Amino acid sequence: MNSLVGILGGMGPGATVDAMQKLIKNTPAYRDQDHIPMIAVSIPDIPDRTQCILQHSASPLKKMLQYMKILENAGAECIIIPCNTAHYWFNELKQQCSVEMISIIDVTCQAIREAKTTRVGLLATTATVKARIYQDNLAADHIHCDIPDEADQQQVMESIYAYKSGDITGAHRLLSPVKDRLLQAGVTKIILGCTELPLILEKEAKTSPQHYIDATEALIKKTVEWYFTHSPKKPIAA
Amino acid sequence: MNSLVGILGGMGPGATVDAMQKLIKNTPAYRDQDHIPMIAVSIPDIPDRTQCILQHSASPLKKMLQYMKILENAGAECIIIPCNTAHYWFNELKQQCSVEMISIIDVTCQAIREAKTTRVGLLATTATVKARIYQDNLAADHIHCDIPDEADQQQVMESIYAYKSGDITGAHRLLSPVKDRLLQAGVTKIILGCTELPLILEKEAKTSPQHYIDATEALIKKTVEWYFTHSPKKPIAA
Repeated sequence: MNSLVGILGGMGPGATVDAMQKLIKNTPAYRDQDHIPMIAVSIPDIPDRTQCILQHSASPLKKMLQYMKILENAGAECIIIPCNTAHYWFNELKQQCSVEMISIIDVTCQAIREAKTTRVGLLATTATVKARIYQDNLAADHIHCDIPDEADQQQVMESIYAYKSGDITGAHRLLSPVKDRLLQAGVTKIILGCTELPLILEKEAKTSPQHYIDATEALIKKTVEWYFTHSPKKPIAA
Repeated sequence: MNSLVGILGGMGPGATVDAMQKLIKNTPAYRDQDHIPMIAVSIPDIPDRTQCILQHSASPLKKMLQYMKILENAGAECIIIPCNTAHYWFNELKQQCSVEMISIIDVTCQAIREAKTTRVGLLATTATVKARIYQDNLAADHIHCDIPDEADQQQVMESIYAYKSGDITGAHRLLSPVKDRLLQAGVTKIILGCTELPLILEKEAKTSPQHYIDATEALIKKTVEWYFTHSPKKPIAA
């Protein structure tokens, strides 16, 4: 078997499937056997990340560590987490992980730098915004990060929870005017900094890709790159 | 954690993601934590199932057993395989599996019996057709199974390989006339008996659901039923 990619998922399950779908789409393949080997753990009983950061409720760290170990024991050689907010605990996870991990925050910020954008908008959970996960990473490069005002941010959060509850239309209705206001305010690109957001704004991201940086897509592109660096010339078939 | 569903996937990777997506859609859930815990192993170096059955090339059994053990070791309590052709080896896998397994063939045939259909059409890999995986299961109930003629069957196979190679438009162009001819011949319902087929005929299955029995959907519905029988009143949240 070639290098195995581990996906620590379930945050949420739809975002996990989106990451897997993007891994498939970003892999040059002509048959099943050409695809990247992956194992995904999507056990969604991990406590809510946003509630923990903002309200100090139960921490998700213990369960994330437990499910990360499943991936390591199964032979994963590189672990990714398709959830931006979970990256609040990224360093703690990395410290206890014996294999490589790719940070969705680092690769997304790198994509922003490469796009030479100096003013971006951030759509993310209230926890990701308040913990300044993106802003602090970008500040070093003097990239300004516009965030929605308090009422709009509340609407972003409601949109994310609506999507998680299966109300896709409601999620879009809540999010759409917020992204319009960010663009009207003059940001060049909007970071879709929560893995539910590329699903809610799927149509917009397709028709106006120049306006969005999809964090999931950035994570997956780096993962494909990692894979081909680590399994360059091994035979593909069994 | 509630009962964990294991998905022995990678045959192909797109079909694995489709099964996961259908598991999410078929689960009543209002938040991440309500969803069914799952672990998916999608390691696609498993030798081609159709080629093995028809041309006696390398058997996929050894790798399927190896990856099934990853699921068992991770704590899966019920294992499903979103690949019809792989069910040629279902009994051998089941004999070496220490947890429950649900057969996609059994649940699809059960769905056909429940629909009181007496004449169905079968779209599947040439191996699934020639090994009579569906026909023999249905014959006991006097349900006749129409299969495409040899030229059409060849076209079905080409369509499946086209989809696996990423050529979705080509796959649809090849498959569409074959399903038309089956329907014109008078079958009431067509079994989408290869997990790539619901993806190739996604639009048709949505607009004319009365004409199709999606084997993946049948498998997932039974899996959801299994889950709620085995995790009925356990608390959902951590």
